[in-house]
Amino acid sequence: MTTVAYLGPAGTFSEMAALSLGMSDVDPISCASIAEVFEAVERGKSELGVVPIENSIEGSVTATLDALVFDTTLEIQRELVLDIRFALVAAPGISLSDVTSVVAHPQASGQCRRWLERNLPGRPITAANSNAEAVQIAAGTPGAAALGPALAAEIYGATVLEEGVQDYAGNQTRFVVIGHGLRPRTGNDKTSLALFMKKDKPGALLMILSEFAYGDINLTKIQSRPTKRQLGDYMFFVDLEGHVEDADVRLALDCLRLKLREVKVLGSYPNAR
Amino acid sequence: MTTVAYLGPAGTFSEMAALSLGMSDVDPISCASIAEVFEAVERGKSELGVVPIENSIEGSVTATLDALVFDTTLEIQRELVLDIRFALVAAPGISLSDVTSVVAHPQASGQCRRWLERNLPGRPITAANSNAEAVQIAAGTPGAAALGPALAAEIYGATVLEEGVQDYAGNQTRFVVIGHGLRPRTGNDKTSLALFMKKDKPGALLMILSEFAYGDINLTKIQSRPTKRQLGDYMFFVDLEGHVEDADVRLALDCLRLKLREVKVLGSYPNAR
Repeated sequence: MTTVAYLGPAGTFSEMAALSLGMSDVDPISCASIAEVFEAVERGKSELGVVPIENSIEGSVTATLDALVFDTTLEIQRELVLDIRFALVAAPGISLSDVTSVVAHPQASGQCRRWLERNLPGRPITAANSNAEAVQIAAGTPGAAALGPALAAEIYGATVLEEGVQDYAGNQTRFVVIGHGLRPRTGNDKTSLALFMKKDKPGALLMILSEFAYGDINLTKIQSRPTKRQLGDYMFFVDLEGHVEDADVRLALDCLRLKLREVKVLGSYPNAR
Repeated sequence: MTTVAYLGPAGTFSEMAALSLGMSDVDPISCASIAEVFEAVERGKSELGVVPIENSIEGSVTATLDALVFDTTLEIQRELVLDIRFALVAAPGISLSDVTSVVAHPQASGQCRRWLERNLPGRPITAANSNAEAVQIAAGTPGAAALGPALAAEIYGATVLEEGVQDYAGNQTRFVVIGHGLRPRTGNDKTSLALFMKKDKPGALLMILSEFAYGDINLTKIQSRPTKRQLGDYMFFVDLEGHVEDADVRLALDCLRLKLREVKVLGSYPNAR
């Protein structure tokens, strides 16, 4: 039995991610925030945690990036890409033409806006704190339907009226599994880094890219970001193909450590692609 | 009178941004989504639009970036950085000890989580679709308080129980003003770009940074992103110091246009710093 902390309540896409890990025996532990997921793993209440890190429509999940960079010694153990598909769900016996109101997390109603305008025009949209809460409320409210993962319908005794009601195809969320220690090398790995610049060093990014280019290391993501700790202080998030124990990657990081204020390895883990 | 479309309803931080433009006579027009703000300006229903583009806690606002890159010929006319301060507000006559429930947009309750745990422990938190809607609901619900901008309290006849209840200082949102055509050069400008790579060109980013370094052009932001249009297709968002009509910037962009699939200028506008 592996305990896996996730961003709850039950029936969210994060729980779907936890259940999609392909482990035979997962005991999911619902947490109220991303910070609580990290805490549960740090304090040993859970072996692993699952947190969203990037959505193809909403962008990076800053709470997760910040927790990895500033607040924890946990490392990424694995990545997982999940298709985000919303279903319209309601209490059993209700059909689409009976629906008089919609309950949804504001992000969900934003992502299904055009579908709602076409199929349920003029119905008032009430907000919920999570996709799971939306489904739970709708399951107990006459005439209400909710936007949420189909999994939540099962959990809260609701039925699916329509699947795939999101406006954009290709909406995916990348989740990472967090835990203690460095994952061993598999030969097809990715590494996530936070690189902290020294002040007033124009050309720093050019130097960083040159170090990776010299080692034939492919970058799959780069993103600059103010550090929040100090105005004018910048850092970069970088994902690269390779493991910190690969000779080329180790050489590049050793060179960078000599020149940058800090190089933090957020984890090396098997490439999901 | 200048008409300015913004992400409504009245009393959101976006309206505060529209009113903070320092124009003598602003007629704010509330829109239901970021896409609607763009549409209002494109169709001439509004002269300008104000949309959030980046939050120091939540990260980039992808809907705005995507609209600028893929869906519009409008350009950024100006940027504006607003401190995001939440107030706890309620109907007149209610004090903090009377508060039995809280209404908030999920992002707002996330950003004020610790303050709520300390000061209003155990009170249920009901979701709202926007900060303004939260204030509007609380103003009419006995015992309820809302998280929202102080401006919204005024608009909806509520009073401020406490100011600055967000957990993190330094929470700022960067807004951009969108409109028709290129802003003239002021000598202290920024330029936002979307750069589309050709496939299978490792070293492309290194080449891009070299072009900017050759022109002594300082980058203030860089972010990679899949284009969504085609899997494996990557692009970069870049903000730089300078105007597209500066000789150095023009030369760099001319060189990049020869080599990249596309260089789209999202706007040149006065630097807010």
